[in-house]
Amino acid sequence: MGSDPAGRPLAELVAHVGGTLRGDGSLIIHGVEGLAEAGPRDLSFYGSHRYREALASTRAAAVLVPVGEEPSRLDLAVVQVPNPHLAYARISALFHPVARHAPGVSPRANVHPSARVHAEACVMAFATVEALAEVGPRVVLYPGVYVGKGARIGADSVLYPSVTLREGCLVGERVVLHASAVVGADGFGFAFDAEAQAHVKVPQAGIVRIEDDVEVGAASCIDRATTGETVIGRGTKIDNLVQVAHNVRVGPLSLLCAQAGISGSAELGTGVVLAGQVGVVGHIKIGDGARIVAQSGVVHDVAPGATLSGSPAVDLRAWLRQSAALPRMADLMREVRALRSRLEALEKETKP
Amino acid sequence: MGSDPAGRPLAELVAHVGGTLRGDGSLIIHGVEGLAEAGPRDLSFYGSHRYREALASTRAAAVLVPVGEEPSRLDLAVVQVPNPHLAYARISALFHPVARHAPGVSPRANVHPSARVHAEACVMAFATVEALAEVGPRVVLYPGVYVGKGARIGADSVLYPSVTLREGCLVGERVVLHASAVVGADGFGFAFDAEAQAHVKVPQAGIVRIEDDVEVGAASCIDRATTGETVIGRGTKIDNLVQVAHNVRVGPLSLLCAQAGISGSAELGTGVVLAGQVGVVGHIKIGDGARIVAQSGVVHDVAPGATLSGSPAVDLRAWLRQSAALPRMADLMREVRALRSRLEALEKETKP
Amino acid sequence: MGSDPAGRPLAELVAHVGGTLRGDGSLIIHGVEGLAEAGPRDLSFYGSHRYREALASTRAAAVLVPVGEEPSRLDLAVVQVPNPHLAYARISALFHPVARHAPGVSPRANVHPSARVHAEACVMAFATVEALAEVGPRVVLYPGVYVGKGARIGADSVLYPSVTLREGCLVGERVVLHASAVVGADGFGFAFDAEAQAHVKVPQAGIVRIEDDVEVGAASCIDRATTGETVIGRGTKIDNLVQVAHNVRVGPLSLLCAQAGISGSAELGTGVVLAGQVGVVGHIKIGDGARIVAQSGVVHDVAPGATLSGSPAVDLRAWLRQSAALPRMADLMREVRALRSRLEALEKETKP
Repeated sequence: MGSDPAGRPLAELVAHVGGTLRGDGSLIIHGVEGLAEAGPRDLSFYGSHRYREALASTRAAAVLVPVGEEPSRLDLAVVQVPNPHLAYARISALFHPVARHAPGVSPRANVHPSARVHAEACVMAFATVEALAEVGPRVVLYPGVYVGKGARIGADSVLYPSVTLREGCLVGERVVLHASAVVGADGFGFAFDAEAQAHVKVPQAGIVRIEDDVEVGAASCIDRATTGETVIGRGTKIDNLVQVAHNVRVGPLSLLCAQAGISGSAELGTGVVLAGQVGVVGHIKIGDGARIVAQSGVVHDVAPGATLSGSPAVDLRAWLRQSAALPRMADLMREVRALRSRLEALEKETKP
Repeated sequence: MGSDPAGRPLAELVAHVGGTLRGDGSLIIHGVEGLAEAGPRDLSFYGSHRYREALASTRAAAVLVPVGEEPSRLDLAVVQVPNPHLAYARISALFHPVARHAPGVSPRANVHPSARVHAEACVMAFATVEALAEVGPRVVLYPGVYVGKGARIGADSVLYPSVTLREGCLVGERVVLHASAVVGADGFGFAFDAEAQAHVKVPQAGIVRIEDDVEVGAASCIDRATTGETVIGRGTKIDNLVQVAHNVRVGPLSLLCAQAGISGSAELGTGVVLAGQVGVVGHIKIGDGARIVAQSGVVHDVAPGATLSGSPAVDLRAWLRQSAALPRMADLMREVRALRSRLEALEKETKP
Repeated sequence: MGSDPAGRPLAELVAHVGGTLRGDGSLIIHGVEGLAEAGPRDLSFYGSHRYREALASTRAAAVLVPVGEEPSRLDLAVVQVPNPHLAYARISALFHPVARHAPGVSPRANVHPSARVHAEACVMAFATVEALAEVGPRVVLYPGVYVGKGARIGADSVLYPSVTLREGCLVGERVVLHASAVVGADGFGFAFDAEAQAHVKVPQAGIVRIEDDVEVGAASCIDRATTGETVIGRGTKIDNLVQVAHNVRVGPLSLLCAQAGISGSAELGTGVVLAGQVGVVGHIKIGDGARIVAQSGVVHDVAPGATLSGSPAVDLRAWLRQSAALPRMADLMREVRALRSRLEALEKETKP
């Protein structure tokens, strides 16, 4: 939060992201901001023509732009880079280094004697680490975190307050679990006993495995497998309030936006994008690079690279045609009635 | 829970809400209940013709009704008020005063020496208050609450168990955060690095600011801004499991019902109502007083006062026309086929 | 997790579920697995023709099949049972007995002196039990659990980490509340005061009552009633991130899948199934055995045994007809235009 009072020369930032500068490299930059919010000490970025007006009126000192873009404003320092948003992320990280937490286990934490907590890990008050669990170097466990029996957490991962990681689940390196995320709760599996009139619980004996560089949003839930593993692949990012059911396999580098839900045993490939509030039924496969529009419901396998929309979801172009037709339905019905009348009149005339 | 054993004279309740009484003001009222549930010691309310039958059969001793309403039942005491639901809320509050918690910091809480906790605040066991945080008078922090570094909470606010308020976030006065709500988790912002094949985190360096008199439901998530603020305006009420993304601005007096989701940088005006499971895409504006029907998906700016429905959401009247047409589509297709046959027959006849 | 190293003879498992064996009863079974994952020491199950290929290629030692099913593979031991999934659940429970927790109250828990905690209950570190609350025999309260004033929990129930059970709420026997579930938060009830320009809180003075054998998923929320009770009936199972509003009554043996939401005062009968992301408006009734397809929105009363789909939800068959018609709308409009042209041509000819 807040900007860097000392600041950094623009030339240093340009070098950091490998850009080409038009302007004064000795300019001191104190922070990064959006085009609309930036002030005369800030760097901003311009990534899409949608923000042309914001670029024209920004008060920023310098702006990251795509290679080839030449803003007409001469009062602006301009940094050309292949991917302005990415360069912005990297420069912002310079201004907002990740907080370091003092290593050590709080005397008010509860760590089982058989757990292995690395000397460089930080375990805060009211965190719990159960028997045989392993907590890697530089891991941070905030207050209220629960690490179940035999669970393992790789180096540099952060578990925010009130995260639950149930027994036996595996978390890779550099993973972030936001507050109140629940990893490894029982999958939703019951068999109906008609005689006893009861839903009988199917033991959920598997685990969750979260690979390296995954981020899981606040209050998101990833259920343990019935047997085997529920898997979140390397580098996948999950937003808040997302549901991932038992035995789901999400490939690497996917993005699951807020309130999306994936039913049991579904498989998502690499780089799949589920927009907000998307639902995916169980036991289907979504191919690499597929994109699903917000609020859609996926009920069949999806081909790699496809873009789907609607509930049930269909190819985006088909969906756009449907959506365009819908508002004209009332008119169409009127037209058909009119045609019928004219046809009837004609029929009477021709067969008198 | 439970009713007041001593009770209060009806006349006192009538005076409290400024109503007009038809009946015996010395009647002792012991509690408030819905029309169907009320017993002969209770006050109830009648606000809509939908409940005419319930009014006719209620066992209540007295009923709040709108001005001008004259129930025919003479055994009922009747209190005319401009807004029966509001009067009911005020009278119910007399019977259910908010619990007072003894001030003081539990020895089992964890409060950083540099935090400022008001002497009249109540900090329960297993609550955490980090460095430089401020907790105002009569604030209640339940067990498992986490107040991050430099966060500030205004007078008379209540944070229920396992609420997370991340570093630097601001909470106004008389705010209620229900259990497991998460305020200030990182926004969902990543830039794709095609070379490294990785989603690079965009630092989420802003905060959340919650104004006075806001209520946030259980397990709802309000993400911190990328830079600047995510804002929840004065008097807005948020239900359970709602997602508010980074840099969203919600105006005053809005109502966000359960499981609604608002994407990044969207702006909602004053008195906007999102019904349950509504989705709002990013970077759009919803005007003052607009109402969005349940499960709708808002993808464009919305005019003040508009009512929208559907996914994608359109004006309610247009949506009702569409919805009415939909079930007749199969018939329409049959009709068009029949017309074609008749037309073909006619064409043959006329051009032999 | 993991399989049983000692194993159990197949004949013992067959007897446990009352099945008929074709094969060698002395075979030692070490675990249960899905058809695709099972190895030569495992038992699996086959419940539907969808898995015919998996049955043909499974490496399992033995398979549970429906009565009458005679797999052609002679290398497989086959166990005929009326309900293979149910038999699988029962046998899996033999291999995965529920973990027993040592009874007793952790010295790091916070239990009010007036609370009654059974000597056989297990109250872990950082759990809170408030005044007058009752915790039954063999109940397990994980770290971070909050049990409010006067709340009651029946025998053999388990509350996972960071569960909140607010004051006065009642939980039956053998109930499971998964991590971060919130039971008894305030219902979402406000009356608008136009003069003061404020949403005035309607006190939520009722409770939640959860009957025996209910399971509630992670981060699911069940709000307390305005007055009276919100009820979850015996044996009902609720998945993750589900919203149940104030004064809802859910009958016994219902299944509420992930991210479903039920608005205030709705009533669900016995054995109702809400699939994922379903929404139900307030004050309606859903009859016994009704099934609602994923993402549907229920806006009217539903007859017992009905199956509904769509938003707004209609009878499944009607919805399938609509859905089939939708992709043909663009073609239909083209057809109608063509008919009009032909009709016009004909009209000109016949009335020259």
